Amino acid sequence: MAARVFNERGYDGTSMEDLARALGVTKSAIYHHVTGKTELLRRSLDLAMDALFAVTREEASTTGPAVDRLEHVLRGSVRVLVEELPHVTLLLRVRGNTEVEKRALDRRREFDHLIADLVREGAAEGDIRPDVDPAVAARLLFGMVNSIAEWYKPDRGLDSSEIADTLARIAFAGLSVSRTHLAE
Amino acid sequence: MAARVFNERGYDGTSMEDLARALGVTKSAIYHHVTGKTELLRRSLDLAMDALFAVTREEASTTGPAVDRLEHVLRGSVRVLVEELPHVTLLLRVRGNTEVEKRALDRRREFDHLIADLVREGAAEGDIRPDVDPAVAARLLFGMVNSIAEWYKPDRGLDSSEIADTLARIAFAGLSVSRTHLAE
Repeated sequence: MAARVFNERGYDGTSMEDLARALGVTKSAIYHHVTGKTELLRRSLDLAMDALFAVTREEASTTGPAVDRLEHVLRGSVRVLVEELPHVTLLLRVRGNTEVEKRALDRRREFDHLIADLVREGAAEGDIRPDVDPAVAARLLFGMVNSIAEWYKPDRGLDSSEIADTLARIAFAGLSVSRTHLAE
Repeated sequence: MAARVFNERGYDGTSMEDLARALGVTKSAIYHHVTGKTELLRRSLDLAMDALFAVTREEASTTGPAVDRLEHVLRGSVRVLVEELPHVTLLLRVRGNTEVEKRALDRRREFDHLIADLVREGAAEGDIRPDVDPAVAARLLFGMVNSIAEWYKPDRGLDSSEIADTLARIAFAGLSVSRTHLAE
């Protein structure tokens, strides 16, 4: 898969020849399907972002208290990350050097705003602590989710719902048994 | 600063000429101080890891309940990340392609183990919820910390202690006002 090769060699460092070799086909076979490397990158980034936005349109993400919708989106994002690991990994490494990359970064930003809005709504509904900045909280929550791309090894028997459980426990209830509010 | 140039252009994509231009000196002036690009990378990665390990040796990281020591290390790591942003950013992008990078990854792994041990001790002491895998929790916590390198803008007036407060609130008390334990 192209995304895997891009992640291993870096997008810039990957030639169509490298891709053909990794996929076990000829270069012209690839050109039969796509116009080139850029299109492969675009498809991968679109696939990752489409999957993340699809989570935000699920019923449990659009109805009910914001805190529950936020939890649903977080859990769904963990699932997408694990299921589409090479594509999301590629997405997370994008630095915005080309039009295709800039567009992906715009979509990520739009997604971040959506998460920050859920935190804000949850606070307005009285379910989320009011003493966190919604934008900072949204970024930290996705810091946890996105980190999975750095350390998750599909072959080690940890499944995405276990990771999602641990993440949701930390995010909503916190690690501490006794403290529900922190002293300043 | 070399780390900044490496982050902008990618380490592989940076020549000694690029560095000299960015630093406003001649190449030979750089060679007067270091043997080459590799040494600049090594110094940067060492600086970042030394600063993180220094936090773990502070008194508040070595005495008292594990949950408090964990909080101290997390807050200190946020501070290091913000203060040494270019060096830590470089560290977080290392993929282990060279000996210098492999050594940095080994030190990061050692640091991760230290954090997982604190979570484990905190659970044994009854202060940290026992239903989280310490290794997964450690990685998620540092997912939050490390994400700061992706989104923190020094010029936007958010200081490291505010980020540390939000991070500690999420990590220990959770975002939810009402829930202290999550239903399965």
